[in-house]
Amino acid sequence: MQLFYFKSRSQNGNPILEEDELGHCVRTLRKQVGDNLHLIDGVGGLYLGELLSFDKRQAEVRILENLPRQVPPPLNLHLVVAPTKNMDRVEWLLEKAIEIGLTRFTPLLTTHSERKNIRVDRLEKIALAAAKQSLNLQLPQIDEMIDFKTFMQQNVANESSFIAHCYADEPRQFLPLVLETLDTATNTPQKVTILIGPEGDFTPKEVAEATKLAYQAIILGNTRLRTETAGLIAAAMVAARNYSLSTK
Amino acid sequence: MQLFYFKSRSQNGNPILEEDELGHCVRTLRKQVGDNLHLIDGVGGLYLGELLSFDKRQAEVRILENLPRQVPPPLNLHLVVAPTKNMDRVEWLLEKAIEIGLTRFTPLLTTHSERKNIRVDRLEKIALAAAKQSLNLQLPQIDEMIDFKTFMQQNVANESSFIAHCYADEPRQFLPLVLETLDTATNTPQKVTILIGPEGDFTPKEVAEATKLAYQAIILGNTRLRTETAGLIAAAMVAARNYSLSTK
Repeated sequence: MQLFYFKSRSQNGNPILEEDELGHCVRTLRKQVGDNLHLIDGVGGLYLGELLSFDKRQAEVRILENLPRQVPPPLNLHLVVAPTKNMDRVEWLLEKAIEIGLTRFTPLLTTHSERKNIRVDRLEKIALAAAKQSLNLQLPQIDEMIDFKTFMQQNVANESSFIAHCYADEPRQFLPLVLETLDTATNTPQKVTILIGPEGDFTPKEVAEATKLAYQAIILGNTRLRTETAGLIAAAMVAARNYSLSTK
Repeated sequence: MQLFYFKSRSQNGNPILEEDELGHCVRTLRKQVGDNLHLIDGVGGLYLGELLSFDKRQAEVRILENLPRQVPPPLNLHLVVAPTKNMDRVEWLLEKAIEIGLTRFTPLLTTHSERKNIRVDRLEKIALAAAKQSLNLQLPQIDEMIDFKTFMQQNVANESSFIAHCYADEPRQFLPLVLETLDTATNTPQKVTILIGPEGDFTPKEVAEATKLAYQAIILGNTRLRTETAGLIAAAMVAARNYSLSTK
C-alpha cells in the first residue's frame, strides 16, 4: 500500500501534500485528479482520499474514509544518541528503532562526539520512510542536535531515565531488570529515556553529571556494543517489556 | 588494537596468516620480520606474536604470549534466516548479531525467498570483521544456504527451537516468555535455534511443518518487523535472557 503523508490542511480541512510527497504522488506515480490515495497524518491516522487538484506547489486531497486500524500501544521511548561519524549507522538505527516503535529521537553532542552536526531534515525523511514501511503511523519527533549540558538542564530525569556507559568499575544495572522492578512497582509502562554515548563513550564526568541528576546508569549486556547497536538493543528491550506487560 | 586471524598452523605449530590477513599485515600495514602482532584463532584465543617470515603466499608468526581475557559466556544462538533480496540487510544483521554474540548462522531457502543463493565467503569476511571489531573472538559458524525441507530433516528441534511468523490467527508465544519458562524449568541457558522467514514470510505450510516437528511458533513483538530486524531482536532477547541468568 502506497502511503502519502500530509503535514498541513487547506482552509476547509482538506489534506495538503507538499514537497517530496507531492512529487512522489503526481510526478513519480502520475496520479490524476479523481484518483484514490491512502494518506497518513503522522499521528496515527490512516485515510482513503481522492486527489482534488494539484499544481507545482501542492496537491489537495479530499478524505473519503477514515480507515480504522489496530494501533499498537505507543512505546513511549525517547532515544538520545550521540550520532556516529558514519551517517549510515545513525540512519539505520533510526529506521530500525522506528520499526520497533520509537517515539522521539534526539541527536546528542558530547565531549567525545566525532560528529558535531547532523541534518535533521535528512533524518525526518528516513523516519517518514521507515514509518510508512512498518505501518507504525505515528511519526517520531526528531529534535535538533543538542549538547549534553543543555540536554541535562532541559530534561528532568524521571524514574525511567537512563544513561548507558562502558565503565565496568562504575555501578550499573541491567536495563530489563530495572524496567521489571519499575513495572512491578507501578504496573504501567512509563516514558523511557535512554542516553547512548558516542564511539569513545561518555566521559566519566558526563556519567557523573547524569547520575547526579537521577539518570540511572545501565548496561545492555556483556558484550561491547557499537553506538547504534546499543541504541537498537535498548529499544528492543523496552519494546519487549511493553509487549510482555500488554499480554499479561 | 589490530587483530590478525589465523586458520592454520605450520608443522611446528606456528600460526600462519594467509590471503586477506596476509595482505593486510604485510602489504597494507607493511609489517616487517620481527614486528609484534596480535593474533586471534577464531575459537576465543588472543595472542601476542612476532612476525617470523613471509612470502607472497603466507606469513609465519611465533606466539610470544597467550593473552588472557575475560570471555563472555557463549550465547549459543543459532539464527536460521531467509536472506533478504537486498544483501546489505543480511550483512548488517550478521554484523550486529555477532556483536551480540551469535554462534551460528544458516541462510535458509524458503518458498517465498527472493534471494536463492548467497556467497558464504562474503558472509565469512563480514563475520571476521565484526568479531574483530567487537572483540567477540569466537567466530560464528556460517553455513551454506540450505532449503527449508532439508533443514527440517537435518536439525531435530529441542525445547528451545523456534519459528517466528506473522500469522496473527495462529497461536504464537512471545519469545522472552518462553525462554523465561524454560529457564525456570532447567536453570541453564540452552542452545537456542530461531528461524526467521523471508520478506513474504514462511508459508502456512512451512509453519505447520515446523511446528509439527516441535519448533515452537513465536512472536517477537507487536509491530511488523523486517526480516533483518526480527533476526536482530530475537538475538537481543536471547542475549538479554542469558545476561539476566548470569547475574542472578
